[in-house]
Amino acid sequence: MGKIFLIPTPLGPSADRNLVLPAANREIINRIDYFVVENVRTARRFLAKCQLDKTIDELTFAELNEHTPVEEVEALLAPLLREGRDIGVMSEAGLPCVADPGALLVAAAHRKGIEVCPLSGPSSITLALMASGANGQSFAFNGYLPVKPAERAQAIRRFERRALAERQTQIFIETPYRNRKLFDEIIAVCAPKTMLCVACDLMEPNQYIRTLTVEAWKKQGAPAIDKRPAIFILFGI
Amino acid sequence: MGKIFLIPTPLGPSADRNLVLPAANREIINRIDYFVVENVRTARRFLAKCQLDKTIDELTFAELNEHTPVEEVEALLAPLLREGRDIGVMSEAGLPCVADPGALLVAAAHRKGIEVCPLSGPSSITLALMASGANGQSFAFNGYLPVKPAERAQAIRRFERRALAERQTQIFIETPYRNRKLFDEIIAVCAPKTMLCVACDLMEPNQYIRTLTVEAWKKQGAPAIDKRPAIFILFGI
Repeated sequence: MGKIFLIPTPLGPSADRNLVLPAANREIINRIDYFVVENVRTARRFLAKCQLDKTIDELTFAELNEHTPVEEVEALLAPLLREGRDIGVMSEAGLPCVADPGALLVAAAHRKGIEVCPLSGPSSITLALMASGANGQSFAFNGYLPVKPAERAQAIRRFERRALAERQTQIFIETPYRNRKLFDEIIAVCAPKTMLCVACDLMEPNQYIRTLTVEAWKKQGAPAIDKRPAIFILFGI
Repeated sequence: MGKIFLIPTPLGPSADRNLVLPAANREIINRIDYFVVENVRTARRFLAKCQLDKTIDELTFAELNEHTPVEEVEALLAPLLREGRDIGVMSEAGLPCVADPGALLVAAAHRKGIEVCPLSGPSSITLALMASGANGQSFAFNGYLPVKPAERAQAIRRFERRALAERQTQIFIETPYRNRKLFDEIIAVCAPKTMLCVACDLMEPNQYIRTLTVEAWKKQGAPAIDKRPAIFILFGI
């Protein structure tokens, strides 16, 4: 029976593949001819750079993203179940099946007893966490904050409370064009001694990672994070 | 001024470097001659396999682990601050500065305005998460459970509650020789429909990853996880 390989991709457009992906990934990708991907264009562009032994046109792609009806996910396993072919799963960027619908395919695979093989690659969450200086013995990734102002402020306060009371490092992301707004809200809402790490454009040439107390950020002013993919980390000392 | 490079290492003893680490990491390591490491023996063994352009004896090592007094951490930055040398930080296995005292060095670096550069590498936490089929939009890594039986059962119940009520995937680890005990406790304590992923020996030849409901695990029996490094993931559907 075929296996499902979870294939990480670079985090940003200018990233050098050799900087973020193990050489062995290319060998595994090279043996696969059926891919379930979040976005076919991005996937084709990535595979073109992998210098495979076959042309992109010999490969089959199926899309699995937020537009895919849940009841259609299991059918994507058919080439594996019927013909024994391996499946390669790729998301838009970084690790697949963490914060994208690829997880539904993996869950379906476990129900069928199919072997799932994750490959090593870059995660903006763990890269930011290791570079933040925060406690990584206990941390939570919370995805996006609510958009409505009152709920947002409440969510930031709740995260700060958990960061301090449970010593659980709190990680979240924001749509890049709202980064500056989120930064300002955190600075306005959180206690002076709370630590805030801002990490953006990870593994890209203009990578920026900085951890300061809320107090120090207030003095120093906001970093230039507007429209850049960023990770925010709140923690206590 | 020098920079701090956070250098991931393979997760297990038999792992092929090319399977888990980008080729570029070797080039960066090759330019560093001062290393702050969790364990000097393990670090030397890893560097010996990197085929550097210099001998291991030309490199300087300092240890930073649970025995290092907190007040001595900042002094480890001296070669960087005084001589402008880069520092390479490595933990026993996997990503440094996530769940080891290396985070204290990174925090000290941020206080001094030193640039911190994380390198890409394998994390057993994210590898297990992506291969589990669980929701990765919201997840928490909780480290080790308490050892005392009553507190342990309580902790498992608390994790399950958060997994179901907040839809937050709960990840934890155990000392390998207690894996089987933990598995039995989870199966005894959690609801039949709760999902449990057991992932062990990640990226090693005998890798095992399986997600089932607690109910299905009960029928199938425990996997052979005794004394193997494992990650446990609890989540709801």
